Formats: sequence, structure tokens, C-alpha cells
Amino acid sequence: MHNRFAFQGQDRGTWAVRSLAAVRGEGVAPASHVAVLPYAEAGGAPAWRFDGLMSNLRYATRQEVSQLRARQQGLGRPGANYAAMIPIKKSDAWWALAQDERRAIFEETSRHTEIGLAYLPAIARQLYHCRDLAEPFDFVTWFEFAPVDEPAFEDLLARLRATPEWHYVAREVDIRLVRGH
Amino acid sequence: MHNRFAFQGQDRGTWAVRSLAAVRGEGVAPASHVAVLPYAEAGGAPAWRFDGLMSNLRYATRQEVSQLRARQQGLGRPGANYAAMIPIKKSDAWWALAQDERRAIFEETSRHTEIGLAYLPAIARQLYHCRDLAEPFDFVTWFEFAPVDEPAFEDLLARLRATPEWHYVAREVDIRLVRGH
Repeated sequence: MHNRFAFQGQDRGTWAVRSLAAVRGEGVAPASHVAVLPYAEAGGAPAWRFDGLMSNLRYATRQEVSQLRARQQGLGRPGANYAAMIPIKKSDAWWALAQDERRAIFEETSRHTEIGLAYLPAIARQLYHCRDLAEPFDFVTWFEFAPVDEPAFEDLLARLRATPEWHYVAREVDIRLVRGH
Repeated sequence: MHNRFAFQGQDRGTWAVRSLAAVRGEGVAPASHVAVLPYAEAGGAPAWRFDGLMSNLRYATRQEVSQLRARQQGLGRPGANYAAMIPIKKSDAWWALAQDERRAIFEETSRHTEIGLAYLPAIARQLYHCRDLAEPFDFVTWFEFAPVDEPAFEDLLARLRATPEWHYVAREVDIRLVRGH
């Protein structure tokens, strides 16, 4: 299960919490730190734990995948000391849609990939899938960037939250982090 | 984890093995029975165990979903005493494809859904996703039908195995079962 990770809110960990806010629906318990652990190393008694899987992209076309690969950078870059962990649950209405309907909302209408591309390589992103694990959230979205790029990240978020896709977001929590405090 | 099931090859279970054959790549160990268990009830010392998740459809359009729902029947029908469990692993080349490329091979070229529709409601089907669980197979495909419909099932399988999509099948095992022996 090298693709499975646990996100644990607790009193120690690589990432110190700068802020933790419920954006839509129920929030999560406060915690001073977030640890991102390989599944085999997860455990203890965290305030909360959400598991997620790295998987294949579900909507991107070949052209979009090529653009993403040409521009994106990985996690753990020097200088990218800020992170945002944004767990999201989509509505039953979203999951009742067929693939072509979800794709149309995700990209043709909401420009999800296109918006993200505009902020590469500054805002590195990784998606973790949780829904098939019967977790409370469907996804943990994870972003890393330099402190100077946080205004750009706010802009990215504002654009995504204004899309038709976000009508299908039933629960969203926004946790801002800094490395190594 | 009510969406997660374990398929266990062992010496007892609801389904007795009629035949067990490696179609492509490595087979699985012989077993006299297959038990399909909710995750919480899985365990013991089976000859083999493969876990899979029921999830949302990944390729079907709204029109295809509507056609499927209008014609398909559930598992466990009286008289549908035969089953086939066909675990499948697709190649790395398949998973390196983008969504639009996978969709084009799956349906526009290979007519996967269209072929399946032609055998509804006689051949009931359920797909279980395994790849994100880091299982040896990517999918467990499960079919139930009356003994009189097994020739139709053979025809369905032959048509699917002749498609371009099957060029991407790296491993396939075909286990035929009968209920309650």
C-alpha cells in the first residue's frame, strides 16, 4: 500500500498548523500539527486521521496531462515551506452523475485543470482519493508553495470556489500549514 | 468500508469451483470454493484472497448509464446459480493513458459497454476495483447467470477478449462457480 497515506491532526509532526477553518459543512477538531504518514507508519492517538490514496487522473485528457507534466513540480521543494490541506466531500448529486457529465462540469464549464495550470509551477499540488476508503471526505487536496506565493494561492482558491463544480462541494475544510515549527 | 469485499479461495464457501484457468499470465492457486465476504468478515487462512471495492463507473456516459440501469438486474437472482469470477490486471501502458485515451479504447473502439448491454439482463455483472488497494489484480469482474445462459456468457467473453482493450490485459484468470455445492 505504498500509495496510501494517513493525514493525522495531532500535537507533533512535520507541519505546524497556521490556521484551520471550516469552509462548508462540519469542521474538524483543532490540532497544532499535521503529520503525513505512509500507511504502514500511521497510528497513535491523533485528534483526527484521514486516509487517502494516490491514484490515476480521472478527468484529464492527453493534452492536459502533457501540459501538467511540462509545468508541475513535485512536493518537498526547498523554499516551499507553506502547505494547504483542503479535505473535500462532494455531494451525492455529484456521484450520481455519469463520467461525461462530471467531466463537463469539471473542465468544460469549471476549467479546473486550466485554472490550476495558471499557477504552476509555483503552487505544487497532489490529490489523494478517500471516497473508496469510506472516509468522511472524498478527497484530501494538498498544495505546497513558498510564503511569497500565498496570495496567488488565495487567488487560485477563489477562482475554483466560484466555479459550477463547487456547487457540488458538500463539505470543505481549509488547513494552512508551515513546515518544521 | 461497506463497499469493500474480499474474494477468498478456500475449502468452503457459498460458491463451489467448477473450473479455474489462467487465461493470460500467472494463474492462482487451486481452491474448491470461493467465499465473497464483507471486509469486516474476511480472514482465516484462505489459499488466496483478493480485495475489491464497489465504486462509481469510470467511463460510462449518461446515455450508457441509463441504458444499463434500464436493463441490468442485481446479483443473487433465483436461478442464476452459475457465476464467473474473472480477476484482471491491465498493463502499465493502460494506466499511463489519459482519461480520453482510455475512454476511446474502452468504448469508441472496443464497445465494452455496448457488448455487455447485449447480454442483459441474462448476464448480471458487478465490477470491483482493486488497483488502488495495491492488489495483484486491478479488477475483480463478477458475473451471475443461469446455467442455460453459459453459452451466451462464453460469447460475451469471446467478444470482449477480441477487442483492442484486451491488448492492455496483462493478467487474467477465469474461475467458474456454482452456488451451494
